[in-house]
Amino acid sequence: MKHLLGIAGLDRSAIEGYLDLADHFAEVNRRAIPKVPALRGKTVVSLFFEDSTRTRLSFETAAKRLSADTMTFSVGTSSVNKGESLRDTVETIAAMGVDAFVVRHKSSGVPWQVSGWTNAAVINGGDGWHQHPTQALLDAYTIRGAFGSLEGRRIALVGDIRHSRVARSDVDVFTKLGAHVTLVAPPTLLPPSLEGWPVDVAPSLDEVIEELDVLYLLRMQRERTNEALVPTLREYTDRFGLTAARAARLPEHAVVLHPGPMNRGVEMAVDPDELRGSLITAQVTNGVAVRMAVLYDLLAGRDADLTDPDALVPAVGSVPTGTDPTARTSGRQA
Amino acid sequence: MKHLLGIAGLDRSAIEGYLDLADHFAEVNRRAIPKVPALRGKTVVSLFFEDSTRTRLSFETAAKRLSADTMTFSVGTSSVNKGESLRDTVETIAAMGVDAFVVRHKSSGVPWQVSGWTNAAVINGGDGWHQHPTQALLDAYTIRGAFGSLEGRRIALVGDIRHSRVARSDVDVFTKLGAHVTLVAPPTLLPPSLEGWPVDVAPSLDEVIEELDVLYLLRMQRERTNEALVPTLREYTDRFGLTAARAARLPEHAVVLHPGPMNRGVEMAVDPDELRGSLITAQVTNGVAVRMAVLYDLLAGRDADLTDPDALVPAVGSVPTGTDPTARTSGRQA
Amino acid sequence: MKHLLGIAGLDRSAIEGYLDLADHFAEVNRRAIPKVPALRGKTVVSLFFEDSTRTRLSFETAAKRLSADTMTFSVGTSSVNKGESLRDTVETIAAMGVDAFVVRHKSSGVPWQVSGWTNAAVINGGDGWHQHPTQALLDAYTIRGAFGSLEGRRIALVGDIRHSRVARSDVDVFTKLGAHVTLVAPPTLLPPSLEGWPVDVAPSLDEVIEELDVLYLLRMQRERTNEALVPTLREYTDRFGLTAARAARLPEHAVVLHPGPMNRGVEMAVDPDELRGSLITAQVTNGVAVRMAVLYDLLAGRDADLTDPDALVPAVGSVPTGTDPTARTSGRQA
Repeated sequence: MKHLLGIAGLDRSAIEGYLDLADHFAEVNRRAIPKVPALRGKTVVSLFFEDSTRTRLSFETAAKRLSADTMTFSVGTSSVNKGESLRDTVETIAAMGVDAFVVRHKSSGVPWQVSGWTNAAVINGGDGWHQHPTQALLDAYTIRGAFGSLEGRRIALVGDIRHSRVARSDVDVFTKLGAHVTLVAPPTLLPPSLEGWPVDVAPSLDEVIEELDVLYLLRMQRERTNEALVPTLREYTDRFGLTAARAARLPEHAVVLHPGPMNRGVEMAVDPDELRGSLITAQVTNGVAVRMAVLYDLLAGRDADLTDPDALVPAVGSVPTGTDPTARTSGRQA
Repeated sequence: MKHLLGIAGLDRSAIEGYLDLADHFAEVNRRAIPKVPALRGKTVVSLFFEDSTRTRLSFETAAKRLSADTMTFSVGTSSVNKGESLRDTVETIAAMGVDAFVVRHKSSGVPWQVSGWTNAAVINGGDGWHQHPTQALLDAYTIRGAFGSLEGRRIALVGDIRHSRVARSDVDVFTKLGAHVTLVAPPTLLPPSLEGWPVDVAPSLDEVIEELDVLYLLRMQRERTNEALVPTLREYTDRFGLTAARAARLPEHAVVLHPGPMNRGVEMAVDPDELRGSLITAQVTNGVAVRMAVLYDLLAGRDADLTDPDALVPAVGSVPTGTDPTARTSGRQA
Repeated sequence: MKHLLGIAGLDRSAIEGYLDLADHFAEVNRRAIPKVPALRGKTVVSLFFEDSTRTRLSFETAAKRLSADTMTFSVGTSSVNKGESLRDTVETIAAMGVDAFVVRHKSSGVPWQVSGWTNAAVINGGDGWHQHPTQALLDAYTIRGAFGSLEGRRIALVGDIRHSRVARSDVDVFTKLGAHVTLVAPPTLLPPSLEGWPVDVAPSLDEVIEELDVLYLLRMQRERTNEALVPTLREYTDRFGLTAARAARLPEHAVVLHPGPMNRGVEMAVDPDELRGSLITAQVTNGVAVRMAVLYDLLAGRDADLTDPDALVPAVGSVPTGTDPTARTSGRQA
């Protein structure tokens, strides 16, 4: 059984395969009936040990559009104290007949553990500060949609790199696709060592902003001020926030991304609805298509996609008269 | 995109359109397989910032019987403090591809705000003391079912009018359909001004009970005694509760409604299961049909209903042999 | 309307009928698309007044594989204080059009109460210390799968018999199917009277372990030590736990069951993943098939099963080319 645990195991061609497959599902999502029978009878379980309505709803929407059944298992932190308990939980749910687990946990590595306890496919939905592979894939898909390719694009990741699983996965995906990545953060919010990170570092946003194709703002956790990693949120905004003045200095063609949820007035110090080049809403929309691609790849097999285009047409009886849902995919049937 | 935010925007003909459409869905709900493919591939999200299992389950049942997918987003009050947060939440969920939001919130006007942030249809599932339009439609549908029409019917709304969104929406719907409405409440539980309310007021239930066609009891919030709006619950019951003695004075043909959940021994001081003329269970059953009508109208379009009767027949393969699911709607196919 | 409230109402032939029907659904569950349209349009509501993710997910998986819609109603203990409230909750949800309630409650007898308030089928999902009939059926199904029959098999139920609804239901089912049951527990964890229980009692596991076909370990509630029913958990394990030494003394052909969740190091003092004869995972898998059988029997009728084999084949359009989903059931079509 295949898993999607982190980005490390994916080469450029595998990443591009996911993005190409996401193009098909983005087309499905624009149909009047955005639903295909590809994963009918499969069960996808959200196993969330850390709350994330956004990520959970995105995966559940993706699963339902592929006609899979979904179940949610949300766990308070109390029952996670013992390794046995987590293992028994996974083995018990798996024994009911689960095809995929989407696992989110505050501890790095838990999705790898889970993949050792079940025959189901395991998708990492975010583990500690470690990895968040589907976020990185949807970010790359969104940037590719804006520029056609990431090759040679200049991308700044701004903010709390140290505690960010998004940053770790993004750096890996963006650089594998040929982008040039600069980390912009105070030294306290950088990892202790950047050895092996194929990136540049800049101490302030002002130094790099005029040269960017992509400005990627990370969420600033308010509790970092208590930990004395940031003096005040206001000082953070002064040096690293996207203010109106900085937004005006972004190149005309530049785009802005954020993994959400935003802290308005902190890292996002302009109204994002007024922000030229904002792709923040597109990220959310693309997230569903990218997660459909991942679920489809893991559960139906990429071969199935290439040889059975019917899996991507609506179920019998659900095609509204006068539409041709296969229009965009008919080339693959020839 | 159309919304159902309040009753104000609906004229008599629009209201009757909803009730007529609900007749069709009530018929669907009596079938062996009470499910039609009308909204296949649509997604209905319950966005509930205030707990209401009853209303949420009713909408979800309605959506599922129309073959829509449903998702629930329940939010604790903590995350609702900032307007930005609410807006970002709505925009994020909407970007995943939502067709309708059912919004419940303790603050008046929130569904209107939400409708400005999304292209999805917005249905007010109850906002503060303000409006609860689907409750009023199902109440009117239930009364129409009992009497054929609301025209000229004498309806008393009894209880905490001041804090009741149900009362505000009911008064509007009932009077638009030609009923005569009397509010029965202590002065402390009436709105500060009744200017523009096309109603009479009576200071006690005893004065009007023998002339009623419809007795509509509102839920008495127990905390009103703490606020000194009511001396004690017992005094409230003495003057405004439905006691056995009062039930005996109701006309034989009269019906009793309550939006639920009931406070037995307070406003409902008889056993409702023994109460002649109680339509309280019928209200709940009718609520599903009325909400199917609203969802269908907003998401499929009323035109679709009139021109495509197949949308109301079961999906391919699901018609049990020996039944004719189109029997009641066949006139529309001719 | 039929219910499944306890085992008392079932004779041997009815129990075997459920197990035979479960065989059909176990076959469905091994298909590529483990889903049949048998209960399309039916609604199954989980009414859980006590948390049990395991049992709830098992019933929901079963319902979804039969194409029923599912809804969950979980209630905190606060709203259960008054009988009226519980009754109103049941009547309200039932009025929306529910076909079956699965009821779990900490008080014995609640499922019987619920069955008096609704026309829907009621399934006892565990009530107090009283009954848990689907657990007993899946236990019997699992043992029958191992030995072909329970007739004459020697089964020990070990642990907290007194507070265990599983034990009460298991004893009834196992003995009706011809097994010989021995209870193994300290006197404080036996019921005050065993009059009418067709069982033997043994004071320690060592006395019986070498003669067992089936070792059934019950979950040891850690709070029993506070109640002074057990001196310490360690002493419990010494006399009643499955240690490595005891596991080695089990006959080669013996099997081990546990209703979950396990307390590792207490009653389960060996690693269950290394335990020869463990059927604990099989119990979970079989639970889905057995609950499909119960739902199907109550909602579609056992007659339907015998006369309409099409109800057990996948829905139109969902059969993958090259498979014959009716292979195992074709004899019934002849």
